[in-house]
Amino acid sequence: MRVLGVDPGLTRCGVGVVEGVAGRPLTMRGVGVVRTPPDADLGHRLVAIEQGIEAWLDEHQPEFVAVERVFSQHNVRTVMGTAQASAVAMLCAARRGIPVALHTPSEVKAAVTGSGRADKAQVGAMVTRLLRLDAPPKPADAADALALAICHIWRAPAQNRLQQAVALHSAKASSKGRLA
Amino acid sequence: MRVLGVDPGLTRCGVGVVEGVAGRPLTMRGVGVVRTPPDADLGHRLVAIEQGIEAWLDEHQPEFVAVERVFSQHNVRTVMGTAQASAVAMLCAARRGIPVALHTPSEVKAAVTGSGRADKAQVGAMVTRLLRLDAPPKPADAADALALAICHIWRAPAQNRLQQAVALHSAKASSKGRLA
Repeated sequence: MRVLGVDPGLTRCGVGVVEGVAGRPLTMRGVGVVRTPPDADLGHRLVAIEQGIEAWLDEHQPEFVAVERVFSQHNVRTVMGTAQASAVAMLCAARRGIPVALHTPSEVKAAVTGSGRADKAQVGAMVTRLLRLDAPPKPADAADALALAICHIWRAPAQNRLQQAVALHSAKASSKGRLA
Repeated sequence: MRVLGVDPGLTRCGVGVVEGVAGRPLTMRGVGVVRTPPDADLGHRLVAIEQGIEAWLDEHQPEFVAVERVFSQHNVRTVMGTAQASAVAMLCAARRGIPVALHTPSEVKAAVTGSGRADKAQVGAMVTRLLRLDAPPKPADAADALALAICHIWRAPAQNRLQQAVALHSAKASSKGRLA
């Protein structure tokens, strides 16, 4: 399973590609950052993100794209930009028919460190260890993107089972609804 | 000046095309709604919005796209969806080199009704009058999109002067910075 993780942001989008299956050693295929100039207008920044993500999809042909789920607890202005950057990443993937999964920051931290409250350094250290790298990827956004991809590979089997269960339950519920 | 107004939303994106110049009667060229199914996954909804906006750009070839500026005072979940839908609209325009302008809801209301606190009915009534329509466009998102386009046509001259002044000021400030 080859997964592109995207840590969305208007100024820096972390991107990382990890290959492997749960329970086996994982391999990093690439890591980097898609940057856009803070002084450019919003439309052009979104176009730059689109071009950057497209280039990563072209080069690595991932089977899944894992994007950080955006929350609004943080700074309001930042969150809007993050939501907009994440929309572009999801759009690029969905347009190619690549399934998109969203994982929350605490799911990602819990997956790679065992704690949903781990700090950046701890996440970086575990990503380095799990992918057998010489040093933590810099900047932190790049390490976070790899952590997202790892999280997706490890959580995917459980998520798929859950989705199947939900689909089955909905089907039953709607058939009951029709009978009632 | 032909302007496509976009009232962004994941479930319903209002779209409306208005042509004219400030101080002269305006003409509506088209109005409608781009809809996406609430039960589809987010990636596919964003692709559907992209296809819808592209079709409007193809048909009407606007010179400007005016998008409602997203705020986060409202319901958090809705705001994320709105930010993501607006990102797709901005991306579609910027990719074609069409300038994108953002206007806040109160700027739009003030432009068409004289009050930044006007309600939906008042905005609908003024859009109907200003564009000489037989009845207010339905749903409200469609009327709001037309109001955005009208707002842009009326505010554009002032905005352009402001942007020029800001550009001049920045140039002076940075030349001072280099001298200091």
